[in-house]
Amino acid sequence: MENWESKEIKLRPIGIIDKTSREDVMKITVYPEYAEGLDGIEELDYIYVLYWMNRLSENDRKILKVHPRGDVNKPLRGVFSLRSPMRPNPIGLTRVKLVKREGNILYVKGLDALPKSPVIDIKSG
Amino acid sequence: MENWESKEIKLRPIGIIDKTSREDVMKITVYPEYAEGLDGIEELDYIYVLYWMNRLSENDRKILKVHPRGDVNKPLRGVFSLRSPMRPNPIGLTRVKLVKREGNILYVKGLDALPKSPVIDIKSG
Repeated sequence: MENWESKEIKLRPIGIIDKTSREDVMKITVYPEYAEGLDGIEELDYIYVLYWMNRLSENDRKILKVHPRGDVNKPLRGVFSLRSPMRPNPIGLTRVKLVKREGNILYVKGLDALPKSPVIDIKSG
Repeated sequence: MENWESKEIKLRPIGIIDKTSREDVMKITVYPEYAEGLDGIEELDYIYVLYWMNRLSENDRKILKVHPRGDVNKPLRGVFSLRSPMRPNPIGLTRVKLVKREGNILYVKGLDALPKSPVIDIKSG
């Protein structure tokens, strides 16, 4: 049997998140080589965006317990029981409203990612 | 600015999915070195499980359009507008009911993953 514990899984960024002139709208630019994968997405109202929280360091990835919402008055809790960005694989997950598609660019509402975060997957929400 | 398009992101499996004697219940074994991250999870009713769909080949990862639900009567559609396992980064995402925690083992209902799929993240659902 394969031992996955010792294996690394390799992801390829499929696009990048950025700001727009509107504070409540974010832009997802899907790299042209993956743009075909967007076909039909304009029919959806909601999508899941999975992105890489690239501001986290290698050391952050070793932290397994945090204070919920950074509030030191709350007792430490395991990262898998929270939505904290701290976690061994810092994948952000947000269900967002799809506002508009323009070719390989999506405009979405409700995405709490930092600008320039790499996108790793988009799914029907 | 960093060019993420050409970069690989490396994930470390944090556990593994397996069958149980009950058809509707799956078992997630979190590797002991990550078990601390589960603290407090027993208080949750629902969690998101992100896992790696490890049966997909390198070639499958290049497929950007598929027939929805494998039905050839349905026109081809982009994988990012679907929940198909085919996608450049085959990460499975399911919101599941947490039935029970026993140390580093979670029992969950509603997980449609194949046995022996590596787990890459668990989040409050």
